[in-house]
Amino acid sequence: MTDNMSENHWMTNGNMATIDKLFQPIYKKSDHTGNKVTVVGVGQVGMAAVFSMLTQGVTNNIALVDVMEDKLKGEMMDLQHGSAFMRNSKIQASTDYAISADSKICVVTAGVRQREGESRLDLVQRNTDILKIIIPKLVKYSPDAVFIIASNPVDILTYVTWRISGLPKHRVIGSGTNLDSARFRYLLSEKLGIATTSCHGYIIGEHGDSSVPVWSGVNIAGVRLSDLNSKIGSEEDPEQWRQMHEMVVKSAYEVIKLKGYTSWAIGLSLSQLARAILSDASSVHPVSTYLKGLHGIEHDVFLSLPCVLGHCGISDVICQPLTDKELAQLRKSAELMAQVQAGIKF
Amino acid sequence: MTDNMSENHWMTNGNMATIDKLFQPIYKKSDHTGNKVTVVGVGQVGMAAVFSMLTQGVTNNIALVDVMEDKLKGEMMDLQHGSAFMRNSKIQASTDYAISADSKICVVTAGVRQREGESRLDLVQRNTDILKIIIPKLVKYSPDAVFIIASNPVDILTYVTWRISGLPKHRVIGSGTNLDSARFRYLLSEKLGIATTSCHGYIIGEHGDSSVPVWSGVNIAGVRLSDLNSKIGSEEDPEQWRQMHEMVVKSAYEVIKLKGYTSWAIGLSLSQLARAILSDASSVHPVSTYLKGLHGIEHDVFLSLPCVLGHCGISDVICQPLTDKELAQLRKSAELMAQVQAGIKF
Amino acid sequence: MTDNMSENHWMTNGNMATIDKLFQPIYKKSDHTGNKVTVVGVGQVGMAAVFSMLTQGVTNNIALVDVMEDKLKGEMMDLQHGSAFMRNSKIQASTDYAISADSKICVVTAGVRQREGESRLDLVQRNTDILKIIIPKLVKYSPDAVFIIASNPVDILTYVTWRISGLPKHRVIGSGTNLDSARFRYLLSEKLGIATTSCHGYIIGEHGDSSVPVWSGVNIAGVRLSDLNSKIGSEEDPEQWRQMHEMVVKSAYEVIKLKGYTSWAIGLSLSQLARAILSDASSVHPVSTYLKGLHGIEHDVFLSLPCVLGHCGISDVICQPLTDKELAQLRKSAELMAQVQAGIKF
Amino acid sequence: MTDNMSENHWMTNGNMATIDKLFQPIYKKSDHTGNKVTVVGVGQVGMAAVFSMLTQGVTNNIALVDVMEDKLKGEMMDLQHGSAFMRNSKIQASTDYAISADSKICVVTAGVRQREGESRLDLVQRNTDILKIIIPKLVKYSPDAVFIIASNPVDILTYVTWRISGLPKHRVIGSGTNLDSARFRYLLSEKLGIATTSCHGYIIGEHGDSSVPVWSGVNIAGVRLSDLNSKIGSEEDPEQWRQMHEMVVKSAYEVIKLKGYTSWAIGLSLSQLARAILSDASSVHPVSTYLKGLHGIEHDVFLSLPCVLGHCGISDVICQPLTDKELAQLRKSAELMAQVQAGIKF
Repeated sequence: MTDNMSENHWMTNGNMATIDKLFQPIYKKSDHTGNKVTVVGVGQVGMAAVFSMLTQGVTNNIALVDVMEDKLKGEMMDLQHGSAFMRNSKIQASTDYAISADSKICVVTAGVRQREGESRLDLVQRNTDILKIIIPKLVKYSPDAVFIIASNPVDILTYVTWRISGLPKHRVIGSGTNLDSARFRYLLSEKLGIATTSCHGYIIGEHGDSSVPVWSGVNIAGVRLSDLNSKIGSEEDPEQWRQMHEMVVKSAYEVIKLKGYTSWAIGLSLSQLARAILSDASSVHPVSTYLKGLHGIEHDVFLSLPCVLGHCGISDVICQPLTDKELAQLRKSAELMAQVQAGIKF
Repeated sequence: MTDNMSENHWMTNGNMATIDKLFQPIYKKSDHTGNKVTVVGVGQVGMAAVFSMLTQGVTNNIALVDVMEDKLKGEMMDLQHGSAFMRNSKIQASTDYAISADSKICVVTAGVRQREGESRLDLVQRNTDILKIIIPKLVKYSPDAVFIIASNPVDILTYVTWRISGLPKHRVIGSGTNLDSARFRYLLSEKLGIATTSCHGYIIGEHGDSSVPVWSGVNIAGVRLSDLNSKIGSEEDPEQWRQMHEMVVKSAYEVIKLKGYTSWAIGLSLSQLARAILSDASSVHPVSTYLKGLHGIEHDVFLSLPCVLGHCGISDVICQPLTDKELAQLRKSAELMAQVQAGIKF
Repeated sequence: MTDNMSENHWMTNGNMATIDKLFQPIYKKSDHTGNKVTVVGVGQVGMAAVFSMLTQGVTNNIALVDVMEDKLKGEMMDLQHGSAFMRNSKIQASTDYAISADSKICVVTAGVRQREGESRLDLVQRNTDILKIIIPKLVKYSPDAVFIIASNPVDILTYVTWRISGLPKHRVIGSGTNLDSARFRYLLSEKLGIATTSCHGYIIGEHGDSSVPVWSGVNIAGVRLSDLNSKIGSEEDPEQWRQMHEMVVKSAYEVIKLKGYTSWAIGLSLSQLARAILSDASSVHPVSTYLKGLHGIEHDVFLSLPCVLGHCGISDVICQPLTDKELAQLRKSAELMAQVQAGIKF
Repeated sequence: MTDNMSENHWMTNGNMATIDKLFQPIYKKSDHTGNKVTVVGVGQVGMAAVFSMLTQGVTNNIALVDVMEDKLKGEMMDLQHGSAFMRNSKIQASTDYAISADSKICVVTAGVRQREGESRLDLVQRNTDILKIIIPKLVKYSPDAVFIIASNPVDILTYVTWRISGLPKHRVIGSGTNLDSARFRYLLSEKLGIATTSCHGYIIGEHGDSSVPVWSGVNIAGVRLSDLNSKIGSEEDPEQWRQMHEMVVKSAYEVIKLKGYTSWAIGLSLSQLARAILSDASSVHPVSTYLKGLHGIEHDVFLSLPCVLGHCGISDVICQPLTDKELAQLRKSAELMAQVQAGIKF
């Protein structure tokens, strides 16, 4: 707990006779920061991510940063009050980025939403201006951290973070289509009647409307659905599996329409990515990464492809064989990203 | 997913050739309801409880009920989209209580908040009127369930639930001071510099302002702080440990003032109680239980004491030796409860 | 703890004044048996399975059965002494099968090993004679349980269990090639430098020497290795990936040669299968199941194929398209099983 | 996997076209050693500790060291084969201590057992001679690690390790009475019918026959049993609770008599201590620590007292008020330790 956030003057009053009688000090407690994760932005997405990480045992060391001091302190206290029910978590919060020092991972969920009538570029510019404040401070206090960006539009803002931060590309990751792929796998699971974790499939490219489902890789126990139905995913498919991808795209909008925002699934997605990195897992996840030179893309853009995540961030990108149509979609998204990015003022 | 909540017509269209080719059916899938937990109310408290239970592995089988259809469906979908990141959870939701059938536990978080200028009794009456709708339907579909009440004022509404439900007292539990005790242990932990899980202490009685900290039982590794400081918790204590209880009482108000509501800690508290019951743990937790005949209390009231929780609900209450002052406080709370309860129209 | 296993006469002496003062009884404790798992055989495999299930939170309710009374009691006590470090587990043990009553799953690890010079049929007959004692007692006390057989030769003994038990085929499962597949995935993981959980591939057929690696399904993020190397797994493959399957076959023998037995990996495999069933996961695992009518097999045999596991046991078998060579191998194994089975005296 | 332990020449053959096609390398994989735990000795205790740590998620990074090369390689392979069922663990093993480099914790379980007719001092000398080989190598490769000693007689060998290592006392810990206390809490749990985790009590002093149960601190929900029965634990107690401590002392012998060794409970105990340290928990555990200057002890001895464990090892010892009899027992044990230690040749 930082000084400006201490709940009560009495708490920090120094030792008392009672405490002196209870303990024989042996060595000063560490100010250990191993596995520390900083989350910037304590809105619905940031808090769902933090709560997922704590309850799933991904880390027990969290620093929260936001500009809204009241909300920030309230969330910190609420989590701290739950520490008896979790595994001895350490929750800190401050409007001052010093609290984030020595983080292994910085998760950025801050940002503004699109205003009515606002152009996409205007939104990007407003969020870029916010990142110009946030990112240099995070880099200053945790120069070796891996950065995960969740703010939207995530692919462009991951690029922006990479530009602003000056960090190598393997340490700047966008949460990307990890969530889209999870939604896709859930819908597969519902349709097939088997566990989501046994339904394999990747959505790549842009997080959102122009994302690309890689039907050729969709499989159950190694059995490709495209081997059972050669037209799967295409317009000619009499079974219309294509609709499943449309539902993925629609479902983000639908959840927002129904409950006002999305939180749980994106929070869990971020928690999974953080676990892969902290535990140096070398596991594969579709996340937004620097794409230039891959799949014939020539722009400085970030889009999602299956990546190997470990302690260093991204160690490898998996090279999926894509159809001409998939490649075209991917390149079109890249083109679009590049156009928007060209208009950003840094 | 219930019919009225299905995301898309296409999803429920029956089998297709692709699916027929993929599977050789052996036996129909079970409609298994083991460890099912129904949560009524998908507000901040209800959803934090559900998310805690899913991420902490307490259950993977949740039914959500609420009257707000949009919000309800939005929360269900958001959780379902996260199922790839959790252990194959089954999330259902409906405004129809049939969805709750065969639950092992029913958690009630529904209820209205105090209006400005509203008397306590008026608030109680309004929430009683809500429980009169909810409880009989839950009992109808899950007659053997254990009921956990989290709606406020929790002690009175636990009594109301008991009255309406006709259930035996061991199966009607109020979340009570399990949260107050967790807050107390967190503050102890901060003051002493040791893990919350190694700080032992119970707050009993009414959840809220008139709760009673049992200082005689506060201990670290079996060392009672009252053996180190005989005046601990009293007004005469030069170290003023009493303030720690005051901070517990204040902190609920403070969190609400700061972030608008409390969610994480109460959600985790409910998840812990659910785990104790589902796993038949016989573990001890301070929860609101029927008190008549205990500690000299003669009223039909529910207040928190340390209780042994297992599959049957509450199997035993722990008999703490209390000081005269603690007894007086407890009896005063009981008196107050009884007075409010006398005015309720069932 | 059963009577004949109680540690001390004093323990079961009934209540005392101290205990009467501590508790106010509310309701008798349940004799709850939800999620109960019985393990027959407390050798290295059985105990590794039990310990995996307890530490991984698959169940907290275990019954152990064996004929070696001393060893059985010693293992029970050793686990019980660890209960403070686990989540309130209930460990029972007895030579009497009554202890197994109302189990959801019965895991059979009992059996003798091959003697020098003993024929395979002689070994099978000796273990059949043991199962003729065990299985009817388990069925008597837990008629609705799902049975998982781990004793070797596992495919034949699963058939034997099915014959003796009279249970429907979906409730008799052999641990089969779930372990071979795990070994295969580990070797893939080592070779590719990515997480085992991100390496997908199935070994099917007989557990052991004649198992069949389904190279067509081996994939990383949906990318089939056979699309990158069309000869993969064949003798013509210049990269000789075939050796990876040979290493899987050899590795069981190698571990036995090195440490005298295998335990951890098979224990974890059984724990995973138990979790899938208890949590009604509908997840896919390669396990030994009744094969007649599948892949052109006409014998009453059990061999491993990817199966969907849930509360009912096996709900579906996944139909993998197999090459002619793979089919031939599978049918040859089936033929061999049938021959051995023909010689068994029931 | 170290070179001398590689399973197969083929595995380490360098990349192949197939692999080159699959990956686009971005950054070299880390050789990350965070949370690494080295366990010396792959006997029953060492392996139960390793398996507990892996399955309970305490660490996913284990190095095994032993002199028995075959056994060592067999255990390593068996764990590796289970990696698909755990969370991407990294298991290494070697007879060369270089494998242990940069560990956060070194657990020592190696040592010989008492021969028939062997004096205690002779046993201590033989194990000291073993530690003289092990400890300097561990210190060389992990100079900042916390050392946990589990070899018996544990209190003396913790002293020996401290002497040999030259490490500060807060970084040399004996597993001590953490296990005795767990057994005591289990017996309390059986007697009272409540969860082990809700039964609080500490056994301190020497691990084994002369251990000291601190009856004054035994409590349920803060209710001291000694307040309900003032003679509890004494010879005058009509209820003879004293027998519970006798059963604790006997139970170690009994388990060894019944199954030949103890493994699960001590493995879980070591896993708990490792978790407290790695997660910087500041939780309280009874472990063997340097006692000079505490409770009037003037010798350079290690005995168990409740200690606060965190990243630095032991930060504080909890000062329990002890009765004269308890103090006398503790001092007598200290005297005995000192006598034995005086005869050791370093």
